[in-house]
Amino acid sequence: MQCVLTPDTEGYDQIDSVTTGASVLVEGVVASSQGGKQKVELKVSKITVIGKSDPTSFPIQKKRASREFLRTVAHLRPRTNTFGAVTRVRNALAYATHKFFQDNGFVWVSSPIITASDCEGAGEQFYVTTLLSNSAEGGSLLKDIPATKDGRVDWSQDFFCKPAFLTVSGQLNGETYASALSDIYTFGPTFRAENSNTARHLAEFWMIEPELAFADLNDDMACATAYLQYVVKYIIENCKEDMDFFNTWVEKGIIDRLNDVVEKKFVHLSYTDAVELLLGSKKKFEFPVKWGLDLQSEHERYITEVAFGGRPVIIRDYPKEIKAFYMRQNDDGKTVAAMDLLVPRVGELIGGSQREERLDHLEARLDEQNLNKESYWWYLDLRRYGSVPHAGFGLGFERLVQFATGIDNIRDAIPFPRVPGSAEF
Amino acid sequence: MQCVLTPDTEGYDQIDSVTTGASVLVEGVVASSQGGKQKVELKVSKITVIGKSDPTSFPIQKKRASREFLRTVAHLRPRTNTFGAVTRVRNALAYATHKFFQDNGFVWVSSPIITASDCEGAGEQFYVTTLLSNSAEGGSLLKDIPATKDGRVDWSQDFFCKPAFLTVSGQLNGETYASALSDIYTFGPTFRAENSNTARHLAEFWMIEPELAFADLNDDMACATAYLQYVVKYIIENCKEDMDFFNTWVEKGIIDRLNDVVEKKFVHLSYTDAVELLLGSKKKFEFPVKWGLDLQSEHERYITEVAFGGRPVIIRDYPKEIKAFYMRQNDDGKTVAAMDLLVPRVGELIGGSQREERLDHLEARLDEQNLNKESYWWYLDLRRYGSVPHAGFGLGFERLVQFATGIDNIRDAIPFPRVPGSAEF
Repeated sequence: MQCVLTPDTEGYDQIDSVTTGASVLVEGVVASSQGGKQKVELKVSKITVIGKSDPTSFPIQKKRASREFLRTVAHLRPRTNTFGAVTRVRNALAYATHKFFQDNGFVWVSSPIITASDCEGAGEQFYVTTLLSNSAEGGSLLKDIPATKDGRVDWSQDFFCKPAFLTVSGQLNGETYASALSDIYTFGPTFRAENSNTARHLAEFWMIEPELAFADLNDDMACATAYLQYVVKYIIENCKEDMDFFNTWVEKGIIDRLNDVVEKKFVHLSYTDAVELLLGSKKKFEFPVKWGLDLQSEHERYITEVAFGGRPVIIRDYPKEIKAFYMRQNDDGKTVAAMDLLVPRVGELIGGSQREERLDHLEARLDEQNLNKESYWWYLDLRRYGSVPHAGFGLGFERLVQFATGIDNIRDAIPFPRVPGSAEF
Repeated sequence: MQCVLTPDTEGYDQIDSVTTGASVLVEGVVASSQGGKQKVELKVSKITVIGKSDPTSFPIQKKRASREFLRTVAHLRPRTNTFGAVTRVRNALAYATHKFFQDNGFVWVSSPIITASDCEGAGEQFYVTTLLSNSAEGGSLLKDIPATKDGRVDWSQDFFCKPAFLTVSGQLNGETYASALSDIYTFGPTFRAENSNTARHLAEFWMIEPELAFADLNDDMACATAYLQYVVKYIIENCKEDMDFFNTWVEKGIIDRLNDVVEKKFVHLSYTDAVELLLGSKKKFEFPVKWGLDLQSEHERYITEVAFGGRPVIIRDYPKEIKAFYMRQNDDGKTVAAMDLLVPRVGELIGGSQREERLDHLEARLDEQNLNKESYWWYLDLRRYGSVPHAGFGLGFERLVQFATGIDNIRDAIPFPRVPGSAEF
């Protein structure tokens, strides 16, 4: 807000302390503004400097400091216009997420963060342990780590008495609650120890994973569509000023792009038809297009941005070889009831599937993928005892924030990004 | 819901498959009930068994299986009345938390889960690492863990290039956002690698940590009071059936106890007066009572349950020696502007403080507690650049669930409890 001071303002002698980063208390009268940039301004009758800020050392000097630099002062960057706006829109998207699911009878379930369950699958997981230490004396000596006779880490002496990891998804746990209470959703942090230094990857990110009981893939697609339209509409209506800011300074046309999501009918397309469409296009792609290969980001963006002119697209029925063991097999024997929701700019925003509720089919898939059935005893129990057709999807929350704000780099879509080599603050 | 079948019901021949744990689809007409236990019942015209459940092997056999046993089948326990009700009330408390803060202009901020920040303080923290592995061949050989020349773990080769931990609190990060956007709150998982096998401790639990800008301890106490009354009122009004269930089967009188929280004025008491009160009581305590010692659970429960007959009590102005470095020093030089909110049964439910916003005072406290000022550079920056008086509190969400449901053991207040020796599912 523009605050107008005159030499008559009480506290005017403190004006030299009113520098970038300082906090002040102002009292006065709101009046319609003389200038063109804002509707109202505050005619200040009294100003008090609460907290000074040395203008020569305040870290954010330039008016438009680079996003890269601002990541090094992540404790101060929310004071900038851009990050203030991102934080508020992120907040609104989170609250709209809760509102949407709560209004539709879903129950929020907190899936566990630490898990010693064997079903998460190895690789790209962080270990959680108390076997290491980093005392003032300089840190763990290797020889002090509890070991078995053959020189291996002795997990039985770890906090959980076996190897434990940070979760990569709450879905399997979510399914247990959907099999008890009907529709549920999770909304919590998940992790990938993936050495990807890209603008699309974080080691720590928030996921939204609804699970619908007595539902098939069509119900799942309808839910994903309604959800996305709801949250996008919510921020357009409730974050007007911030969205105008993004429209002017971050991505021109973003409001139109988002309005398309709310208003236009989503395209539905089978994977097989999507491959046909790509093969029939004149576009040269970097990655090959062939039935049986996964679609790459460039393919997804072509489909939603070019082929369907900005309309969101849901692709369904993917080859079973490129999808997870828990997805329900279609009758053709070749595909599974999976779906990906693609949007312009971001590509895949949501991925979901109907889950395999038939015990024999699920066990066969575990065998095919060389997964250990014993590890999945509790997941299989859901199919042994009162199995129900169910479906769900997962949404990376920071991808949604990127999509909704136009922010390029996912590291700017979360307050304190965690990436290879950096977990500061 | 009671479903009434007759031999005329379509699908009646499947009746033998309608066993505990099975899932069924029933169609029919809702009618007022003949029996006294429910108002309505369903006169079933058609029944279809969706998923069978072998009654001889279904794990939850007994009608009232022990809570301890149910923890071993955490994937099935939400199907019981008790855990269904706990899950729904937990959900309502979470949503009411968001509603309260959102309606009052607070912004949800996700504080980081993994942190390599040195300010968390050693001990009782989980390490997060990719230096270990647990391959099919039998797990990490100690000799394969990257080491420095002097035989120590080589953190520079870890994912974050230094030791990283699971967060124990989002408060310090929350303060950075409160110093930028005014009132914020966090709501996310936090961790303690504490070897406590009690009914009050979890290794993984959810915390709610609001932070109020331009606020002092009185504002903080008012916010904690309003918050607690709001969420308790919310579940009384919105979870009537489940609360009746708890009132009948889990803790007789719980609804009255909760109504007291909503309706009665909270007692405010200084720590010094609380010590006087305890010393003046005729009760024999296990732990000593003396000015300068922390209050134990038995003291807290005596104060709220006996001395003030079930009214919540806020104790304020604790000796600085027993409180954290970041709490604002009072003018007496002996106490800090800290507060604990005590409730019957649980004892301390909320702990908060006004934060020390004066750079010199804060640095002196870090020195007194032998903490490394360099590690706190970004936290101190908040006092260097536009410092504002601010205050906040923390609330362990599972303690709130216990308080609101009457559930004795905190392991039953979270879907998949993590405790020493166990991170199953």
